[in-house]
Amino acid sequence: MSLETPWDKLRDECGIVGISGDPEAANLAMLALHALQHRGQEGAGIVSSDRGRFHSFRGLGLVGEVFDFKALTPLKGTMAIGHVRYSTSGGNTLRNVQPFSARYRYGQVAIAHNGNLVNANELRQSLEESGSIFNTSSDTEVILHLIATSKKTTFVNRLVEALSQVKGAYSLVLLTEEIMIAVRDPLGIRPLVMGRKGDAQIFASESCALDLLGGELEREVAPGEMVIVDRNGVTSLMPFAAQRRKACIFEHVYFSRPNSITFGESVYDTRFEMGRALALAHSVPADCVIAVPDSGTAAALGYAEESGIPFRQGLIRSHYVGRTFIEPSQQIRDFGVKLKLSSVRSVIEGKRVVVVDDSLVRGTTSKKIVRMLRKAGAAEVHMRICSPPIVASCFYGVDTPNREELIAYTKTLEEIQGFLQADSLRYLELGSMHRVMQNPAEDYCDACFSGNYPISIEQAQLEHQLDLFFVDENEGETTD
Amino acid sequence: MSLETPWDKLRDECGIVGISGDPEAANLAMLALHALQHRGQEGAGIVSSDRGRFHSFRGLGLVGEVFDFKALTPLKGTMAIGHVRYSTSGGNTLRNVQPFSARYRYGQVAIAHNGNLVNANELRQSLEESGSIFNTSSDTEVILHLIATSKKTTFVNRLVEALSQVKGAYSLVLLTEEIMIAVRDPLGIRPLVMGRKGDAQIFASESCALDLLGGELEREVAPGEMVIVDRNGVTSLMPFAAQRRKACIFEHVYFSRPNSITFGESVYDTRFEMGRALALAHSVPADCVIAVPDSGTAAALGYAEESGIPFRQGLIRSHYVGRTFIEPSQQIRDFGVKLKLSSVRSVIEGKRVVVVDDSLVRGTTSKKIVRMLRKAGAAEVHMRICSPPIVASCFYGVDTPNREELIAYTKTLEEIQGFLQADSLRYLELGSMHRVMQNPAEDYCDACFSGNYPISIEQAQLEHQLDLFFVDENEGETTD
Amino acid sequence: MSLETPWDKLRDECGIVGISGDPEAANLAMLALHALQHRGQEGAGIVSSDRGRFHSFRGLGLVGEVFDFKALTPLKGTMAIGHVRYSTSGGNTLRNVQPFSARYRYGQVAIAHNGNLVNANELRQSLEESGSIFNTSSDTEVILHLIATSKKTTFVNRLVEALSQVKGAYSLVLLTEEIMIAVRDPLGIRPLVMGRKGDAQIFASESCALDLLGGELEREVAPGEMVIVDRNGVTSLMPFAAQRRKACIFEHVYFSRPNSITFGESVYDTRFEMGRALALAHSVPADCVIAVPDSGTAAALGYAEESGIPFRQGLIRSHYVGRTFIEPSQQIRDFGVKLKLSSVRSVIEGKRVVVVDDSLVRGTTSKKIVRMLRKAGAAEVHMRICSPPIVASCFYGVDTPNREELIAYTKTLEEIQGFLQADSLRYLELGSMHRVMQNPAEDYCDACFSGNYPISIEQAQLEHQLDLFFVDENEGETTD
Amino acid sequence: MSLETPWDKLRDECGIVGISGDPEAANLAMLALHALQHRGQEGAGIVSSDRGRFHSFRGLGLVGEVFDFKALTPLKGTMAIGHVRYSTSGGNTLRNVQPFSARYRYGQVAIAHNGNLVNANELRQSLEESGSIFNTSSDTEVILHLIATSKKTTFVNRLVEALSQVKGAYSLVLLTEEIMIAVRDPLGIRPLVMGRKGDAQIFASESCALDLLGGELEREVAPGEMVIVDRNGVTSLMPFAAQRRKACIFEHVYFSRPNSITFGESVYDTRFEMGRALALAHSVPADCVIAVPDSGTAAALGYAEESGIPFRQGLIRSHYVGRTFIEPSQQIRDFGVKLKLSSVRSVIEGKRVVVVDDSLVRGTTSKKIVRMLRKAGAAEVHMRICSPPIVASCFYGVDTPNREELIAYTKTLEEIQGFLQADSLRYLELGSMHRVMQNPAEDYCDACFSGNYPISIEQAQLEHQLDLFFVDENEGETTD
Repeated sequence: MSLETPWDKLRDECGIVGISGDPEAANLAMLALHALQHRGQEGAGIVSSDRGRFHSFRGLGLVGEVFDFKALTPLKGTMAIGHVRYSTSGGNTLRNVQPFSARYRYGQVAIAHNGNLVNANELRQSLEESGSIFNTSSDTEVILHLIATSKKTTFVNRLVEALSQVKGAYSLVLLTEEIMIAVRDPLGIRPLVMGRKGDAQIFASESCALDLLGGELEREVAPGEMVIVDRNGVTSLMPFAAQRRKACIFEHVYFSRPNSITFGESVYDTRFEMGRALALAHSVPADCVIAVPDSGTAAALGYAEESGIPFRQGLIRSHYVGRTFIEPSQQIRDFGVKLKLSSVRSVIEGKRVVVVDDSLVRGTTSKKIVRMLRKAGAAEVHMRICSPPIVASCFYGVDTPNREELIAYTKTLEEIQGFLQADSLRYLELGSMHRVMQNPAEDYCDACFSGNYPISIEQAQLEHQLDLFFVDENEGETTD
Repeated sequence: MSLETPWDKLRDECGIVGISGDPEAANLAMLALHALQHRGQEGAGIVSSDRGRFHSFRGLGLVGEVFDFKALTPLKGTMAIGHVRYSTSGGNTLRNVQPFSARYRYGQVAIAHNGNLVNANELRQSLEESGSIFNTSSDTEVILHLIATSKKTTFVNRLVEALSQVKGAYSLVLLTEEIMIAVRDPLGIRPLVMGRKGDAQIFASESCALDLLGGELEREVAPGEMVIVDRNGVTSLMPFAAQRRKACIFEHVYFSRPNSITFGESVYDTRFEMGRALALAHSVPADCVIAVPDSGTAAALGYAEESGIPFRQGLIRSHYVGRTFIEPSQQIRDFGVKLKLSSVRSVIEGKRVVVVDDSLVRGTTSKKIVRMLRKAGAAEVHMRICSPPIVASCFYGVDTPNREELIAYTKTLEEIQGFLQADSLRYLELGSMHRVMQNPAEDYCDACFSGNYPISIEQAQLEHQLDLFFVDENEGETTD
Repeated sequence: MSLETPWDKLRDECGIVGISGDPEAANLAMLALHALQHRGQEGAGIVSSDRGRFHSFRGLGLVGEVFDFKALTPLKGTMAIGHVRYSTSGGNTLRNVQPFSARYRYGQVAIAHNGNLVNANELRQSLEESGSIFNTSSDTEVILHLIATSKKTTFVNRLVEALSQVKGAYSLVLLTEEIMIAVRDPLGIRPLVMGRKGDAQIFASESCALDLLGGELEREVAPGEMVIVDRNGVTSLMPFAAQRRKACIFEHVYFSRPNSITFGESVYDTRFEMGRALALAHSVPADCVIAVPDSGTAAALGYAEESGIPFRQGLIRSHYVGRTFIEPSQQIRDFGVKLKLSSVRSVIEGKRVVVVDDSLVRGTTSKKIVRMLRKAGAAEVHMRICSPPIVASCFYGVDTPNREELIAYTKTLEEIQGFLQADSLRYLELGSMHRVMQNPAEDYCDACFSGNYPISIEQAQLEHQLDLFFVDENEGETTD
Repeated sequence: MSLETPWDKLRDECGIVGISGDPEAANLAMLALHALQHRGQEGAGIVSSDRGRFHSFRGLGLVGEVFDFKALTPLKGTMAIGHVRYSTSGGNTLRNVQPFSARYRYGQVAIAHNGNLVNANELRQSLEESGSIFNTSSDTEVILHLIATSKKTTFVNRLVEALSQVKGAYSLVLLTEEIMIAVRDPLGIRPLVMGRKGDAQIFASESCALDLLGGELEREVAPGEMVIVDRNGVTSLMPFAAQRRKACIFEHVYFSRPNSITFGESVYDTRFEMGRALALAHSVPADCVIAVPDSGTAAALGYAEESGIPFRQGLIRSHYVGRTFIEPSQQIRDFGVKLKLSSVRSVIEGKRVVVVDDSLVRGTTSKKIVRMLRKAGAAEVHMRICSPPIVASCFYGVDTPNREELIAYTKTLEEIQGFLQADSLRYLELGSMHRVMQNPAEDYCDACFSGNYPISIEQAQLEHQLDLFFVDENEGETTD
């Protein structure tokens, strides 16, 4: 278990990438996964397709740990898809690391998925009734079985038939011996962009991957769109009935990197403007504005700009604490926040401090930050959260704790302020947040803030029990 | 690739064990796998069943490398099955290490298999037609899918329906949440015995596993018999039509340990008697009889006894060369036989030597042994092979080289003698071999010596192409 | 080789810590090493003293990689010293990881060293003349041999005699069975502070280690001071002739963490004020000020404050790229800066940008940053370096490239600006830098900026040849 | 801790090899170490000398585990020495794996040692008085320090001066930049032979290493002889006063491989003849003679020959249990002998069995063997030990348990027979053993059987305490 656990942030499940038309496809995919590393740190994998032959390498850990030179060498071919994974439920075993690949009667297929299917359990039961055997505890495997059991005669039609049965959030890249397909669910909940680098067509969860590769962003894959890349070029299909898009607004609050253009808007800009809006609504006399680095920095700069209070670096973050702690003893865990963040006494001492963070989940980390600032001599600590209170779980691919662990679900604003021992606490209102965004509020899923779910969630809540039935697999560590 | 490759012996594919009714079931299974280690050195695994929950640990390497204390700790429960594997075709990846376990609509099942199915490819194609997705390149997985797609209402009936569709050699142990089943194909090609230790019921490929555990051998599982162990005790079924048994005679020639009772007969005794028969038929004036250790020792002692020529230790074997060479350079490979065997000059020098080996496959090792003995000063080298010439491949679970690599298929006796540069070469005749055995010749499969296959082999020959289609999976070596 | 190499910063050699009087001494030392991780990422070690018995654990890699729970368990005792290492010259083998420990006639001693001895080669030759055998290629081992060959009757006297023979920079912590000693060279070149946490006496390279432990900073160990902790308490000696202090000013420019109090001053404050001074001297019309994170941030905020130009987050740093790349292929190395830093287009595009960095060594990284900003659409890029040009190598413990690789040694300001392709380039003047510091300029070593060396360097330049003579040791990777 | 511990045999400390004059010197050394593997299984190392530059690789484990292709690649040069190690006292850390290499004032030197110095502790104290710092807990390091502190002007003279101060058993190979030296103590206690392969001069503990390499045995290095190989060829010196030789007779009883010529005699032949002598002296009516494999086999064949009772393979040894168990749980340890040896019931059942073993140390394994044979149905079990009772510890390089653990020291013959629960027990008498050997009894050290020590042992008994003072070093397992 990594130290990340006590770090009190919501977690996206993963990032995906697809590269077609470059002789170094797997190398490019690996670099893109580096750029998407913030979307998942517990596993990484790449599958390449080389003239009808698939090559796969998957491992637990960071991209840089999994993919050294030796690992990439066999991944030949001009097409490759990749995945970084944050494990939500289920054990973090190699078995669950994507991309998944399978051989079925018509050939081979590999898949990488960002999102969560809300009717996976139901579909799985039905497939098992017909004798399908599942190899992972992942909802993604359901799609492979639906493809394998489809009677349609082309891969595209089998995929359309498969996806027409699933409900939920999915941004996918798929690979066969001949084609690559990128597809996004009709609501477009999770992001997916496309771009080019020379002759290569690239798909990625975020545009920052394109920047790293030196490629050019073309556009989003549209909600419900299926983009097919084969030897004839790029074809776009819209096989599903049109629906109003429901982009995950939390991508702009926290998940996406500030240098990404997500759902058509600069993440940095929306965060900066949300910070401004927060200052407008909830000003307080203070000596300095500080950020909880790094996710709160853009908002804190916006807050400072609007309020006229100077921005200072009152908290600094260690570069070296990340996945460092494989098995931390309890004693070290208690040092968790202090290993990651340090206060700068000369900035804080005797000052009235506004602390800007992007969101508040359980409140445990924020409480420690307030304590750290008081120990450094802060005269007052004013907590400003640049998003609304989180009151509901996500069922579309974000790892939310149980509702009872969400501090804003169980406590009033005053109670939370008391828990944090802050001098004041304010959130950005939902309306203010939506006003910052270019598109109308109806175009976004804000269920975690509003409880307003765009897809019914009955089945989803059952999903959590799935792993209970599963084999407790421990793969051998012998390496010869 | 291990040094074993140039060591010129046929290879059995594996050994299996099942333990039911002991709180230390997995520990006992691990010890039994040690006793069966000679049947497979490239992977080992155990699955235990603990009140409805399965625990699994599998790894590449020797039993002692895979199962240290930490690996066994989680394998709780009173039932466990285990497997040691020698990889024939297909890459030697963790994915192919048995026991396989799967969850299907009615629950969980684990399986360990010794043998080879000759219609696996055909069945696999048919299952894939219906949408089944295979996770390994092993024929064993076919049985799991046949169970999963069966509509029968009890596990036993699903298993009977599954096995009634397969053809070939199989000794199996299976595990569900509640029961353990051992079953042997109707021809009884591969061995499987049962025994008891206290309250525990034990199944194993060879009786030497029972000896190690301090248990008592009860009997063979009969050809075509299905033995079910549940809370009510032990039940035996004979669900398949009776056929004449066809026990693999090569178990007595080489595979089984000399201290095992296989197919009801002491392996040591049959080897010793075969050695006697060889001396009777092919005597030659000589000063000493030596064995190619260790598999030729019992036959050499029989030869010495019958011929009156003294047995001497003219070749000694290193204890330390086994799986030592992970990636041997070519230079070291050339030293292969010399690293494993050394001659004792004072035994050999100036002597006429009879060398007894159990079998001759490609002849490469024997040629090096003759050269080694001549270098040690042997006056004459007489090669005596305690089995008939190997002229045909096995399709029932033994890793035979292509027919063209079998020296007795491509060369006459005189040519082989010339290739080996021996002063004489003689084989034990097939008839003599059968006369040593208690049961009539018709009760044994001797296809490798006679080309007389008890099961038609059309499909089998196609099996070899199976892996060509498969994903080249490289699992990550990162361990955190 | 890590990715750090192409990241164009000077490197301090290490960080040290000592804890005396706490039953969890090794645990506290490990936490302190986390806080000092920025001072050395290539190796870490701890030696504890437990009632006359030493326990040692040292390994290559980050503190969190070396010290898991299992590693710390045996390190019992109430005293412990620790070290993090950045390897300068010599192979990065385990053998060279400190603390070093040795047994000599009077008992055991362990040592951890930050700094560099300029007459180590000379002393080593002399010791070898008398028959001493060296086990490492480190100058630190010389001190151990000088202690071992001293005829003085107490450890303190042996240490004084040893240190009176060495010249150069050293902050040391030493451990014997009974006492802990911290000592700093008479010029006080490298930092060393002392503090308390409950009953425990703590020494550390920087005060940020005390903050992490929840301890209180007492004061610097004074230049030339020897602080002895034994069962009678804490004793201070000044055994060396008084000299004017020469604190390494680069600690304030880059090495120390902003939250440390180094040489009695807040590092954050001096960097912020240097940024102000830079703005005062070298203003330029611009739309935003950005930092090269994280080391340039405090100075950039000072620059923004003084100039009135808004601070923006135009470059963001990945949390995940650090020691990730064990053996990067050339292709990935070329992506080095892009894996570590990303530009934020919406901040940069069409803007006149002032980029503040702490220092400029070879200029290679800065050149890539300028290119990255232009690619993101910057209208103008004005580089501001918050320290003077680096024109001379350090011989007191900092890993400086050869003089010929220092861009400011070989090029004029205009040439460097041309090389970087910046619209303008300005450095902070040496005088301005000194005016920011509390103490007079004579109290600091600024040799890297001025070429004015406080200790003669004849011998030092020879040191670099030392490793050429050394055994090329490859320690086995087998772990059983 | 390996499973070897409960296997009740004495252990030699190591085997050594030196190769000079072959461009593949390190490869040949590695192969020779394979042939000497039986002399030490816990560590292996090679140092090569390549035009003035030393290359070293050492690791824990078997030769084949330590030396894969990658490890050998850097070991260039035409001279190399190697070592396999069995750790006696002291922790089994990498630090103690030989060859040791050191740089001292005149250059570099590497050393590999088989034997034990009885005055090492005394010499060490004296060297430490003068300020030498020791890096290992091995007596071998004393020789390096004596060389380093010698004032003589040539390496040969420094070595002679060093060795004239040590007492005890030593067969050594040493390497400098220019020359290789092999030397044996004046009593010639431990073996050392020399031979040639083409232009290369080879030294090895046993002639079986020469056989493996395809070289020719020339002769023993004589007791007290120093053989120097340099560019001028091979020079022999006899720098020490002549003494009567005292070759370790246990080499013929157990340590040496049967195919070696040790001290000028075939080990196989002496064992076979000792077996004959044992039969002559201690015959008993029986149905078969069996060996405890493999060390008892030659003697058992001699016993069978002399007695006319047929030799049978009543016990078989597993090839796979060796260093397999890294950390065996107690449960598995109890299975130790059964994992290593199995009885063959059909040989044993109802029979009167003579069991021949080479020696008896604690008796624990033999007791289990008797029990195993009785369980297999033996009518009578007659134990015949082909050497005299072991009543005294060895101080010249053999790992003997404390005297109190030697069963023949604490018990009478009848008591031992009772402890083993054998029907009879007989040892070979010391006089009979000597009569088998070619040289007079006075030419052998038989202290373990007679208590008659050729070198005084006062100091030696103190050696055992050495490790108590030593740092408990745990080297990191992180590998990047």
